[in-house]
Amino acid sequence: MNVLIPFKLVNPKSRLSLFLSREEREKLSQFMLLDVLKAVSDAGVENVRVILQSNAEKIEKILDVDVEVDERDLDDVINDRLSRNTAVIVSDLPLLNGEILRKFFEKKGDIVLAPGRRGGTNMMLIRKEFRVSYHYGSFMKHISIARSMGLKVSIFDSFFAGCDIDTPDDLLEVLLHSPESKTGKYLREIGFRIVLSKNPCLVRVIKA
Amino acid sequence: MNVLIPFKLVNPKSRLSLFLSREEREKLSQFMLLDVLKAVSDAGVENVRVILQSNAEKIEKILDVDVEVDERDLDDVINDRLSRNTAVIVSDLPLLNGEILRKFFEKKGDIVLAPGRRGGTNMMLIRKEFRVSYHYGSFMKHISIARSMGLKVSIFDSFFAGCDIDTPDDLLEVLLHSPESKTGKYLREIGFRIVLSKNPCLVRVIKA
Repeated sequence: MNVLIPFKLVNPKSRLSLFLSREEREKLSQFMLLDVLKAVSDAGVENVRVILQSNAEKIEKILDVDVEVDERDLDDVINDRLSRNTAVIVSDLPLLNGEILRKFFEKKGDIVLAPGRRGGTNMMLIRKEFRVSYHYGSFMKHISIARSMGLKVSIFDSFFAGCDIDTPDDLLEVLLHSPESKTGKYLREIGFRIVLSKNPCLVRVIKA
Repeated sequence: MNVLIPFKLVNPKSRLSLFLSREEREKLSQFMLLDVLKAVSDAGVENVRVILQSNAEKIEKILDVDVEVDERDLDDVINDRLSRNTAVIVSDLPLLNGEILRKFFEKKGDIVLAPGRRGGTNMMLIRKEFRVSYHYGSFMKHISIARSMGLKVSIFDSFFAGCDIDTPDDLLEVLLHSPESKTGKYLREIGFRIVLSKNPCLVRVIKA
């Protein structure tokens, strides 16, 4: 199994920019990547490549996996590296763990897709020739591309793999379900807390 | 297997009240309940009870399962009806289907919990004596209650069972993944559409 993880370092997670500074969003993204890499390692995968979508020496130093730089569009980045038995995993899944990934790798099908919120494809396992197409509702597009190529599509149904992080609501899921992940610890370090009113709320403690 | 489905008819889904009238939210809730009942039926369960949390003759007429009325707090409603081999399923899971439910019923554990967004417990399977406690982050509370009682807890990890409907973002998931459900058809009937900009957006067509 080959695992590809595309990673955007520069000004990531802009939908969180009302709540986190650019520097904080960059750190958050790095911690999420480290959590995903831990899950991949716990699942016993050795052949992992992180594809940096911008040149970034500082992150290369903290990773002990293969790193490549490719600043093109995500579709080109992935399609040029697709071979059979390749999994593509997005880098912002801090609720992922090795057990979930092991089940994902065992799931049958020519193409296995794990949905994310808002129509995304959070994880994809490719066992036959295929072309990805992110953006514009990739999950539905990937299903129809695969079917048009006569491939057998399986859906990998996971709440935890489905929690990619784009909005404050998503940060709440990290603190609820993965408080001890690197991402969860970082969020607490910079003041994020859960307040248990009737429904759990996310707050940020502002220092006086 | 006994299935309990609590259902609130009066002024439901208040977090959607900017986008849907009260009458529309009531209809939406009824269609979601019908989608959940279809999934339960497709999973081969015969012993199903809907517990109405307010007196509502009009909904009793459209359901062909056992209906009871109990206007107390949700915890009392459920705890008074818990017996071994009981599943409690919330009524706003239009992405659920029979195949997911069959896997859920087969999952081992004294207590099986399916998380919802925002710390909720969307489905719960109870095989030993237990007391539920909804509100204030029920998923974490149910885990700790079960552990304090020495029960074996399993987590049922499902994206589709995790999509309970509270916000416009959640409505988007219905149109993306279950457009042919009763809920999806109703949302389209009252003007909701997906617009595929770079990320899929939910819009409502306003008639001139």
